Amino acid sequence: MNIIKKLSFSDLLAIIEKLTTYSDSIAHDGMTRFAYSQNDELAHQYIIKLAKQYGLTCQQDDVGNVFITLLGKNQTLPAIATGSHLDTVPNGGKYDGILGVVAGLYALTQFKPQQLTRSLTLIIFRCEESSRFGISCIGSKILTGSIDQIKWLKAKDHQDKTIYQAIDEAGYQSAKLSQAELSDDAYGAFVELHIEQGKCLEAANRQIGIVSAIAAPTRFQVDVYGQADHSGATPMGQRQDALVTAALIITAVNTAANNEAYLGTVATIGKLNVYPNAMNVIPGHVRFYVDIRGIDLTSINRVAQGLTTIIESIKITQNIDIKVDNLSQEHPVKLNQTICQIISEICQNEQIKYLDMLSGAGHDAMYMAKKCPSAMIFIPSKAGISHHKDEYSSQEDITLGATLLTKTLEKLANQDENN
Amino acid sequence: MNIIKKLSFSDLLAIIEKLTTYSDSIAHDGMTRFAYSQNDELAHQYIIKLAKQYGLTCQQDDVGNVFITLLGKNQTLPAIATGSHLDTVPNGGKYDGILGVVAGLYALTQFKPQQLTRSLTLIIFRCEESSRFGISCIGSKILTGSIDQIKWLKAKDHQDKTIYQAIDEAGYQSAKLSQAELSDDAYGAFVELHIEQGKCLEAANRQIGIVSAIAAPTRFQVDVYGQADHSGATPMGQRQDALVTAALIITAVNTAANNEAYLGTVATIGKLNVYPNAMNVIPGHVRFYVDIRGIDLTSINRVAQGLTTIIESIKITQNIDIKVDNLSQEHPVKLNQTICQIISEICQNEQIKYLDMLSGAGHDAMYMAKKCPSAMIFIPSKAGISHHKDEYSSQEDITLGATLLTKTLEKLANQDENN
Repeated sequence: MNIIKKLSFSDLLAIIEKLTTYSDSIAHDGMTRFAYSQNDELAHQYIIKLAKQYGLTCQQDDVGNVFITLLGKNQTLPAIATGSHLDTVPNGGKYDGILGVVAGLYALTQFKPQQLTRSLTLIIFRCEESSRFGISCIGSKILTGSIDQIKWLKAKDHQDKTIYQAIDEAGYQSAKLSQAELSDDAYGAFVELHIEQGKCLEAANRQIGIVSAIAAPTRFQVDVYGQADHSGATPMGQRQDALVTAALIITAVNTAANNEAYLGTVATIGKLNVYPNAMNVIPGHVRFYVDIRGIDLTSINRVAQGLTTIIESIKITQNIDIKVDNLSQEHPVKLNQTICQIISEICQNEQIKYLDMLSGAGHDAMYMAKKCPSAMIFIPSKAGISHHKDEYSSQEDITLGATLLTKTLEKLANQDENN
Repeated sequence: MNIIKKLSFSDLLAIIEKLTTYSDSIAHDGMTRFAYSQNDELAHQYIIKLAKQYGLTCQQDDVGNVFITLLGKNQTLPAIATGSHLDTVPNGGKYDGILGVVAGLYALTQFKPQQLTRSLTLIIFRCEESSRFGISCIGSKILTGSIDQIKWLKAKDHQDKTIYQAIDEAGYQSAKLSQAELSDDAYGAFVELHIEQGKCLEAANRQIGIVSAIAAPTRFQVDVYGQADHSGATPMGQRQDALVTAALIITAVNTAANNEAYLGTVATIGKLNVYPNAMNVIPGHVRFYVDIRGIDLTSINRVAQGLTTIIESIKITQNIDIKVDNLSQEHPVKLNQTICQIISEICQNEQIKYLDMLSGAGHDAMYMAKKCPSAMIFIPSKAGISHHKDEYSSQEDITLGATLLTKTLEKLANQDENN
């Protein structure tokens, strides 16, 4: 097995562009590549084919996670892993997740087989975005034994399909899902390169973020049940309007989060559907999702309490039924300080301006941290825009991030020589 | 041409049941038969076939409106018309519109050709519901020269099709749309039988409503443009959340309508879509529709002013762009008092308990009133539920309504003999 050639920076950028062609959105309307969709599958097969062309070995587990490996000298030592995801939100950007995969491929091709002590593995995690099933990081949760089968069986996409059905329909075997969990000594370290998806680096005028902790989402599904009556023939006093009630809850949650803003806590209602959703029918049912994040658990809980309080108050005063399901309540994750230290030393040596920072967004690294020492590197997102077609990171920042990732993986793969 | 047999009440009820099979909803989830959809077309062809089997003549105009006629003795006199529609809202009921069509068919078959002085015509108006294009009463607007071509060209369904495209794709000719307008002397009178879609008859314990005026909708499309950022990585203070802003507007419009409730004015946001609508993306765009109705124009205008005021205030205080399009501003319509008087006399003679009332919902009769003296008869809707799968009118009320419609049409068709 030989590396045919090193990926160049222009190859790296060209692969990112090529991946934009695997999208269900119309041109100029961002990337829509839902997990396990046809375009998602094609994007994964494209990267696998490319990796093989570059002389790397490729494997997939039973749920479609991809493992691309460059063998090291000592294959008895746990490999050093990097990775991210290829699926997107609806009408999302072309860097979120994709950067970490393509830069990982770049990093692996910078070395010859047996050049480093340990092997390097690029993992492409499936279904990191929650857009399809309302559950994020499905691939990395499976790899790290973090699944909640009861919730997963209930979670369905807009076509009423479960995660398990989607995995099977994409040609994988959900029945073998539990066998996909990694052994505790599978990897010696994990480093994920990602775009920031916020404005902190831009505001601080830094090119690199070294992430010390990841905020975790607490999520609720809220169903407001009113009565779908005719909009013209139902006097105001006789209505049970689910959307009017939902509006009160949205306002209250937003106020509760604004009260916690000084601690960095945020709350978002990003997804909301009205039923039957016709101009001349009073909304009979509104379903929406509340996403609360932060690194301070008591602050997160105060916002969740704000949601509970407004709902209890509405139930007492209005003839409206409201159902709340807690979809997830995850704990903020601290990343590995030793790896963060290695990355910051490289930055200092290379005179790269970096920032020690927190991640407000969740990432696969949150789950990989359960299995091995893990870290994250951020590069700036222009104007903090992400999950949107205008998401943009400069070529300079992308190549700097890929270079830093390569040097970090090299250092980690050769760490045994230094001991 | 001979009437083969009279439709019976059980035939009438069986036809209503048969029409429930032309629906895009799954069983037990109400009727979804959008105008010009395949099921809508099949439903119309079913009624045409049935009418022909019963010996009636059938014609369609170039936009698919159906005209089913029983010839009278004096075909030089304008015919007497009845009619309603077969299209539905999403997950709607099985009586709204359908009752008026099927009861009209019942009425026409109760007479022999040349038995009445004037001909009777049952009109099936296309696309009465606004669910597909955001514009109601499309068929009756075309027949009465009430179209607004600029608005109609802009109005699109969820597949981005215009009304004109939908008409052509259903096999009709939108290019000949203007030729479909009725001449001013086409009909001598129009009477529409419909379910009430409210609770007034039930509350008053009456079986029949005689409608003296129809409230007209004033409608706005509101687009709130924020910024779609990552829900975790964007601090509260850096957000432009379109849904949080929409919630404020919904609350303000609801309050404005509650203040006008004593005049019978109502306002509804029945349709709202969030973009991109993902749990972890701050809403970048929310589009919703405001439907204001009443019989007091100054009261309607005060609610519309409430919408304008909150939007102006938000524009000043928040970095959010809001666009408001006035989709329609229709005037309440008075119906013909002479026909109302004829109907109430029949009720008195037959000892039917009736109520003189207003219609909060719009109907094709609003537009037919521009061309000829028009009236409406209501029967009760259980609990006022309409535009919903639980919409229900009793067999007793349906047969009473059909009988009253038949007697009214007979009286109008023979009115020349009495003069």
